[in-house]
Amino acid sequence: MPPRFFAPEAQATGELVMLPPEEAEHLTRVLRLGTGAAIRVFNGSGEEFESVVEATSKEAVQVRLGRPRDPAPEALLQVTLAQAVLKGDKMDDVIRDAVMIGAKAVRPVVTARTETTAAVIEKSRRQERWERIAISAAKQCGRAVVPAILEPVTFEALIDLLLQKWLAGPSIMLVEPGATKAAVPFSELDVEPPDAVTLVVGPEGGWTPEEIEAAGVVCRLVTMGRRTLRADAMGLIAIAAAFARWREF
Amino acid sequence: MPPRFFAPEAQATGELVMLPPEEAEHLTRVLRLGTGAAIRVFNGSGEEFESVVEATSKEAVQVRLGRPRDPAPEALLQVTLAQAVLKGDKMDDVIRDAVMIGAKAVRPVVTARTETTAAVIEKSRRQERWERIAISAAKQCGRAVVPAILEPVTFEALIDLLLQKWLAGPSIMLVEPGATKAAVPFSELDVEPPDAVTLVVGPEGGWTPEEIEAAGVVCRLVTMGRRTLRADAMGLIAIAAAFARWREF
Repeated sequence: MPPRFFAPEAQATGELVMLPPEEAEHLTRVLRLGTGAAIRVFNGSGEEFESVVEATSKEAVQVRLGRPRDPAPEALLQVTLAQAVLKGDKMDDVIRDAVMIGAKAVRPVVTARTETTAAVIEKSRRQERWERIAISAAKQCGRAVVPAILEPVTFEALIDLLLQKWLAGPSIMLVEPGATKAAVPFSELDVEPPDAVTLVVGPEGGWTPEEIEAAGVVCRLVTMGRRTLRADAMGLIAIAAAFARWREF
Repeated sequence: MPPRFFAPEAQATGELVMLPPEEAEHLTRVLRLGTGAAIRVFNGSGEEFESVVEATSKEAVQVRLGRPRDPAPEALLQVTLAQAVLKGDKMDDVIRDAVMIGAKAVRPVVTARTETTAAVIEKSRRQERWERIAISAAKQCGRAVVPAILEPVTFEALIDLLLQKWLAGPSIMLVEPGATKAAVPFSELDVEPPDAVTLVVGPEGGWTPEEIEAAGVVCRLVTMGRRTLRADAMGLIAIAAAFARWREF
């Protein structure tokens, strides 16, 4: 299979497009490809083209788009993962895995027990980093859509978004077994197969009782199994369970 | 919650038991606990006790078992993960995650595209390392059962085991989308909720056509979604999907 590259400007067969700098570097320096190389180009919005490298210079790669092709299909169930920001590089792995399994968007959330703040996230340009990770994961898994890494919000702002129904479909907050009597096992959720779902996953230290209470107004509180799962595995587990339950798998 | 320790000899309230050396070291050096400390002790076979440290020396810890308690419940669906051995430390993470989500056993498998051999696995004592990881993961997730890390086998030997029905329940081999026309989506598996299932997951390089053909005789060939997933995430995804499908979640 030819290597895949991301070019957001790619629109139609026959066009000449430039690869973004990082993609150009990947093509010339990592894969050491040159003029005439057969590649595939996807635009992050769902379109993909058989393509040929037309010209390369030190910092730029020009590509001729060939015939369109069918990329890996998008999931019919549109999952938004609202994920509490985790420590260190763990959030990177969560975003990579969410993109690869087929999430539609990831919404980073700053919760009471998140060990960072929105200011730090902005200053350290983590959202840009996460967006690059989303592109890289889309390249690996065969998707031609790059899921949106949405602007980080506080937990209170997330609840407001959910109350205002700015996110589609039912919202499910994952809670630890025993955290609250209001939670039901995932299998007992009495929802019709939805078109979209928001999965809300907490940080390493879990949710505060106040957060669980606030979420209960707008989210279904759900447990997945009866063992304590790692915070950085929970998002992937929840998406896999939703896909299995609602026939995406 | 008091810290949990593994003591395979723990059988009944009132007994004095010694912690294994690694557990003793964890108690004295890492957690810096001493005589009188309230802890919990589980025996790896499903029993757990409120306990008290009776005595510590440089290398040994003696514990008095108190009243029994209910650990995190075991999954009703008994999952054996037959996992192709992955590169580097990735297998460690797969085993940790399989234990935490609730697998009953992990069977390492040496396949055609596995980049190691049974001889290297044995020489490098990896099975012992994996068993330690299983104990550590059981401590974290609240299980009182330490899942068996079974002896590594070749792919051919695994197929023989499955043919001889030495592993309970249906066997499901996960294959990449497009790898074979014989595969069906997970949602189309026409099996009654089983008591046990064996999930067979391949290495980074995937299965060979010969392996897929050989497995087809005894396994259901199944795809999970239509995107390419990481080999080291596939086991966790497959267990989560099985738990969601068959009402463990």
